[in-house]
Amino acid sequence: MGEFDVIAQYFTRPPKRALLAGGDDCALLQPNQGMVQCISSDMLIEGRHFLSTVSPYRLGVKALAVNLSDLAACGATPTAFTLAISLPEINISWLESFSNGLWDTADEYSIDLIGGDTTKGPLSICITVFGETPANEVLLRSGAKLGDDIYVSGTLGDARLALEVFRGSQSLDRESFERVRMRLEQPTPRINLGVALRRIANSCIDISDGLVGDLGHILKRSNVGATLSTDWIHESAAITQDLQRLEVHKRLDYVLSGGDDYELLFTASPHLREQVAIASHKSLTPVTRIGLVSAELGLKLLDLKGEIMSQQFSSFDHFHAA
Amino acid sequence: MGEFDVIAQYFTRPPKRALLAGGDDCALLQPNQGMVQCISSDMLIEGRHFLSTVSPYRLGVKALAVNLSDLAACGATPTAFTLAISLPEINISWLESFSNGLWDTADEYSIDLIGGDTTKGPLSICITVFGETPANEVLLRSGAKLGDDIYVSGTLGDARLALEVFRGSQSLDRESFERVRMRLEQPTPRINLGVALRRIANSCIDISDGLVGDLGHILKRSNVGATLSTDWIHESAAITQDLQRLEVHKRLDYVLSGGDDYELLFTASPHLREQVAIASHKSLTPVTRIGLVSAELGLKLLDLKGEIMSQQFSSFDHFHAA
Repeated sequence: MGEFDVIAQYFTRPPKRALLAGGDDCALLQPNQGMVQCISSDMLIEGRHFLSTVSPYRLGVKALAVNLSDLAACGATPTAFTLAISLPEINISWLESFSNGLWDTADEYSIDLIGGDTTKGPLSICITVFGETPANEVLLRSGAKLGDDIYVSGTLGDARLALEVFRGSQSLDRESFERVRMRLEQPTPRINLGVALRRIANSCIDISDGLVGDLGHILKRSNVGATLSTDWIHESAAITQDLQRLEVHKRLDYVLSGGDDYELLFTASPHLREQVAIASHKSLTPVTRIGLVSAELGLKLLDLKGEIMSQQFSSFDHFHAA
Repeated sequence: MGEFDVIAQYFTRPPKRALLAGGDDCALLQPNQGMVQCISSDMLIEGRHFLSTVSPYRLGVKALAVNLSDLAACGATPTAFTLAISLPEINISWLESFSNGLWDTADEYSIDLIGGDTTKGPLSICITVFGETPANEVLLRSGAKLGDDIYVSGTLGDARLALEVFRGSQSLDRESFERVRMRLEQPTPRINLGVALRRIANSCIDISDGLVGDLGHILKRSNVGATLSTDWIHESAAITQDLQRLEVHKRLDYVLSGGDDYELLFTASPHLREQVAIASHKSLTPVTRIGLVSAELGLKLLDLKGEIMSQQFSSFDHFHAA
């Protein structure tokens, strides 16, 4: 089985929206009028972004999901993606499972795989995703306003807890482990919430490197500061029972700088709290209010007594991480 | 220096066309009305697609050029690209040279680097390029018509000759080597020719895996056959003096299945020979007529006496090549 057979067998299906997907030098998309096109590209490397033990099906899901999560952060409706993949060998059962994970995720969002590349080399996956939003409704990191509420979607820290179990620094019962492992290996891109937050959120980012680091991007781009409470880390919709069982300092660490959450972190005017609640309800995605945008630059974390915490939380950097 | 510093320092510049390039979850493009968007993605792996000895500047040029070549094959005007790169370490002088090669090539075609990803891992480069053509003017592999002339642009076989010198199976004087080495390491994407061939060529592909293999893609997608003469391989604008000095069987092999040429292979009605000549002239790109599209499926190669050649020429496959 050669390069072209692999593409034909596992990575080709008739497109639903694209004018042409595969089989030529380029794929062809016809953008909808009046829409802005949102584009994001991510590379996943074995041993760096995923464990070599992960099931190929789940890897297919995750590779696409983490890219879709970037579209969600912009409030975009996904339309298509390309896949460039480097494989050490042609392993039929691996390719079948991986492509099934990819197609199942693509189907969930009705998007086309429009092209790409297959080559021999160390296992790495490069996906570029395309989406669109009406002009002027795109959500950006740079729009946070003084006085905005700060929210997170879903739950935080679960993926990091799963990673620590893999690393052997934590243990969990089987049922809990399966739950957090799903969060690590098959994150849910918050596409529906992102779309529902158009014209409501002032700024938005997806949490991939940890809450503190990613909030830092919003603050820097928006030229504002923030104050975060931490009471919600002890009990709220954003904390699963698996996290609640952890010692406090670990829970804080996993939630604030765990990474791999792929939840949305966004800000919105306090006048729009009801609209945020409606967006959450419409998209079937819980959201939790965790802080306020302030004029003073930098990020302040408040403990349960409302005093500034001294503990530092870092964000993930691919060149400095172990 | 961390991941974000690398991106900020080497891979960020204010965009000329894009609404937003870098610094957010997605890049934003505003497609022009009435245009079809052409998209292509390629992954280049060290040791597979380029030698580890190549200068980083030339690698930057080539990584973008081979992607632009796919746009050229569709007759597209390039608009933007994304870059996802995996690096074994942060090497300042390498990054500086590589990014200079990339920017110089981007400037030549006035396109924006709109985003991407930087991570640690084995050296690999994944670029996705974007271009556009007026609707219904895109050049495809599937449009070859019975009786069409078959043409190639530029010269063929030079890159393969350079590769054979690197492999030690050929030797060349210094001047010749530098000439063919440039063709291997800094190919010229035939963007201007591709644009000039809109509404003239019936089908088009870029030659990356060798003439015979890539012509095979046109024939298969167009459901036609072809007859190629070989007299032009002995003397024509498509053969450099460096190739002419080779033994005949090697010259045939390098020209017909050498690969890495990044020239355009296209077909056009014999009624449009003058228009093809004008397109060639306007784009300052020599073209050579090398054969005819025929009804009988398959590819026939004719020797100098006009008899069918028995020699087989293969195309490059990443999973089967040595």
